[in-house]
Amino acid sequence: MPATLAAIAEFLGIELKGEQGRTLTGAAPLEKAGPEHLSFFANSKYAAELASTRAGAVVCSAADAERIPQGCVAIVSANPYLDFARTVARFFDGRPRLEEGVHPTAVVHPTAVLMPGVGVGAGAVIAAGARIGEGTRIHPLAFVGNGCVLGRDCVLHPHAVLYDGCVLGDRVVIHAGAVLGADGFGFAPVPPQGYVKVPQIGWVQVGDDVEIQANACIDRGALGPTVISRGVKIDNLVHIAHNVEIGEHTAMAAQTGIAGSTRIGRWVTFAGQSAVGGHLHIGDQAIVTGQAGVGKNLPPKAVVSGSPAQPMLEHHRGLAELNRLPELKRRVKELEAKLRAWEALSGDGGAAL
Amino acid sequence: MPATLAAIAEFLGIELKGEQGRTLTGAAPLEKAGPEHLSFFANSKYAAELASTRAGAVVCSAADAERIPQGCVAIVSANPYLDFARTVARFFDGRPRLEEGVHPTAVVHPTAVLMPGVGVGAGAVIAAGARIGEGTRIHPLAFVGNGCVLGRDCVLHPHAVLYDGCVLGDRVVIHAGAVLGADGFGFAPVPPQGYVKVPQIGWVQVGDDVEIQANACIDRGALGPTVISRGVKIDNLVHIAHNVEIGEHTAMAAQTGIAGSTRIGRWVTFAGQSAVGGHLHIGDQAIVTGQAGVGKNLPPKAVVSGSPAQPMLEHHRGLAELNRLPELKRRVKELEAKLRAWEALSGDGGAAL
Amino acid sequence: MPATLAAIAEFLGIELKGEQGRTLTGAAPLEKAGPEHLSFFANSKYAAELASTRAGAVVCSAADAERIPQGCVAIVSANPYLDFARTVARFFDGRPRLEEGVHPTAVVHPTAVLMPGVGVGAGAVIAAGARIGEGTRIHPLAFVGNGCVLGRDCVLHPHAVLYDGCVLGDRVVIHAGAVLGADGFGFAPVPPQGYVKVPQIGWVQVGDDVEIQANACIDRGALGPTVISRGVKIDNLVHIAHNVEIGEHTAMAAQTGIAGSTRIGRWVTFAGQSAVGGHLHIGDQAIVTGQAGVGKNLPPKAVVSGSPAQPMLEHHRGLAELNRLPELKRRVKELEAKLRAWEALSGDGGAAL
Repeated sequence: MPATLAAIAEFLGIELKGEQGRTLTGAAPLEKAGPEHLSFFANSKYAAELASTRAGAVVCSAADAERIPQGCVAIVSANPYLDFARTVARFFDGRPRLEEGVHPTAVVHPTAVLMPGVGVGAGAVIAAGARIGEGTRIHPLAFVGNGCVLGRDCVLHPHAVLYDGCVLGDRVVIHAGAVLGADGFGFAPVPPQGYVKVPQIGWVQVGDDVEIQANACIDRGALGPTVISRGVKIDNLVHIAHNVEIGEHTAMAAQTGIAGSTRIGRWVTFAGQSAVGGHLHIGDQAIVTGQAGVGKNLPPKAVVSGSPAQPMLEHHRGLAELNRLPELKRRVKELEAKLRAWEALSGDGGAAL
Repeated sequence: MPATLAAIAEFLGIELKGEQGRTLTGAAPLEKAGPEHLSFFANSKYAAELASTRAGAVVCSAADAERIPQGCVAIVSANPYLDFARTVARFFDGRPRLEEGVHPTAVVHPTAVLMPGVGVGAGAVIAAGARIGEGTRIHPLAFVGNGCVLGRDCVLHPHAVLYDGCVLGDRVVIHAGAVLGADGFGFAPVPPQGYVKVPQIGWVQVGDDVEIQANACIDRGALGPTVISRGVKIDNLVHIAHNVEIGEHTAMAAQTGIAGSTRIGRWVTFAGQSAVGGHLHIGDQAIVTGQAGVGKNLPPKAVVSGSPAQPMLEHHRGLAELNRLPELKRRVKELEAKLRAWEALSGDGGAAL
Repeated sequence: MPATLAAIAEFLGIELKGEQGRTLTGAAPLEKAGPEHLSFFANSKYAAELASTRAGAVVCSAADAERIPQGCVAIVSANPYLDFARTVARFFDGRPRLEEGVHPTAVVHPTAVLMPGVGVGAGAVIAAGARIGEGTRIHPLAFVGNGCVLGRDCVLHPHAVLYDGCVLGDRVVIHAGAVLGADGFGFAPVPPQGYVKVPQIGWVQVGDDVEIQANACIDRGALGPTVISRGVKIDNLVHIAHNVEIGEHTAMAAQTGIAGSTRIGRWVTFAGQSAVGGHLHIGDQAIVTGQAGVGKNLPPKAVVSGSPAQPMLEHHRGLAELNRLPELKRRVKELEAKLRAWEALSGDGGAAL
């Protein structure tokens, strides 16, 4: 919906200089924005785009406000990315929302309980004994297994899958194709005949405000729960094995994998394609860089990279040394040449000394 | 269901000392178990949890039996993990099973053949000419393509997808979102116009007792089959390209990727995020460690790590050397200093010798 | 359908020596083909299979024609893989195609517009305002979100998911479980409370002739589009983050991941499990090898490997140096021994010189 700069400033609790009456109708990136758009600046890589933006207003820091071109209004914020996000959510997010009510083609088991305000889309299936909290939206073709419990205002996007017994808090968002509660990978080898499957009779427990992106997999615990704590954010195609416990507000970028029974602290950051082995502990606020492979416990605030992962500075030093190896070899060769020259001069390999 | 220790011991063929009448009602991990629970001990990392467990009984080795705390009964086994798995499957796996019969919202093509005891869940679709073996369960919203043939007692979990022509043995389990038989990635480049798609007219052949976890992808062969042999276990988000052949009882942890036309032996183990290039042979019982990238054929029983993968010992030695490089540099510097000192003393760079 | 060699030669515009009347009924790999099959030879790794093939005819280069065994006819081509692909597509691809028309169990919103010749399979869902171009096939249980626009002759395989607002060109193929338009991974951290979600109000724009394989994820832009240009091929389980732009005819093998806002040129090649960081530029025709992790901009035609990625030759040199480190250490040790010997002889550490 359209919003005046005055309305935006009031919403953000920010004082605005001039042009209070200018009206914006949407948000766009700096390089694509026109006078009707709000944009933001929070990454110095985009300074050129800022300098030439045609946006009507830009949310930015006080320091960056002077870099904003003429005709564009600076909305000065202590946290531009956050305030931009809040503004877009409040005024400019016109994406359609699934309607309340159960679509006639949805299949809701008679023993399932739907609280007021629930929406269930076409072709979605809700199995026996499931309980769906107030305002929660189950999009088309999503599946909620037997006995699942969902809190309030959750969203299951199309094709999301919850196996039996998953427990979700409030405001949990599960994107398309994500699978919660599939069997953990537990097999007892009995060579030469094969494997005996270890029954996976646990479940998945998800805290409030968790968001899980498309096609991610969170396996159920073998006996107890796999735990995704409050505020955790899990990106596309991430794998969480059985019995893993992830602490509050930890964020995992795409294609990360966590092996079984590992416990991860709070506010840990995993960059893309990183991995952690099984039965480990990762301390609070640790950072695991892209493609790193963690094979040992990590203390709080550790920053690691490489595979096997090392403290990032050591890893970088090792890589730098590797790049300087030809230089080291040259120096050794020079030493050898000098000694050979001396040996030749001394005739008998130094014995004359 | 509840089970006495006597019943469990009889089932396992194990002699039990004392407390035959104690009744258990479920299974739980050591740290969460109460007197009504069975637990197990097979990984020494959890010795502390064993020492303080409140479990009613613990399956463990003879050597570990004495570590079990008072009040807890040791069920001594030559293979604790296996016997625990068997006991849970026999007594404590209360998870719901899809009912026999076709749900009224399922869509089964008139030319599809369902053997007795088949269950088809809400919204599942079975296409023309498919044949579903006795007792097989097709969960809600799963899809079985034209002409697929499924053996007895298979399970397709919700949202599993079989493209046309997949052939599955008996007792095959396919988890949610796994896709079997999608087109292989075959395109003939015709620059500058683009690519011409190579028709993928093969299929996927899956042996008995295979289990494929959530969101894994097994592409169909380009011309012949992609083969997943008997007993193979494939974890979440694994990628198997077209024409690959995987030997019996090979296990692949999450996010592993196998490129096209590679042949993998029997009882091979892939740890998570490992990869193998195309057109290679991997010998029986080889082990590929986490994040390793195999670019060459591997002999049987090879153990490799790193990217590109090397024999694990060599790889570890290389990493250790890398870590000791600063030390080596220091030694070279010392040699240089000594030589410089001698040169200074000898006045003319050693010529005086 | 059956085809004579004369018909195949005419289709390809190739002159054929002898056996014009031989009839083929299908295609098969060299080692499995019989006299009724067409096969091809384009990779010297399969020379043994060529020598012993029983195929009725083989498409191959002029140079390889003489290696073809007796009884088999050589179809000599300047581009064997391409001409084989074209021939199979023309004559031997008997895979079933989804019928025209809307299956009675499909759910098509009354405001959606379907052009002539569209097919919609069982249980598929097409939401409000979507527009489906002529001849496009929406397979069973696929989902098309609000306001999506699909061109002509597209194929959405079973369980493909398009969130609201996706725009697809003509002849786009989306395989099972692929998700286009899920929210980008955008969260503004507000410690210690958690994160505030950044609304993802952009969309996904896909050019003509794009093919996206199973369970791949292409996130919508945060504000503008995520762009997949004409002719791009994306393999299974690939992750494309929000705001990424991929140039024409770029190909990405399985499990590759591209972080947010990165721009990739034309005809770039990504091998499996490779990755690119956020906010980078990758030049045209660059090649990123398997498991490489790109952390810097790449110029056109760069060839990189390793994590962090380096020019491939440097990376290989570094690995080779690493393998020769024990040798270097041995040489340093020898130098040290010699100096020690000299020092001992000279009595006072060289001062006597």
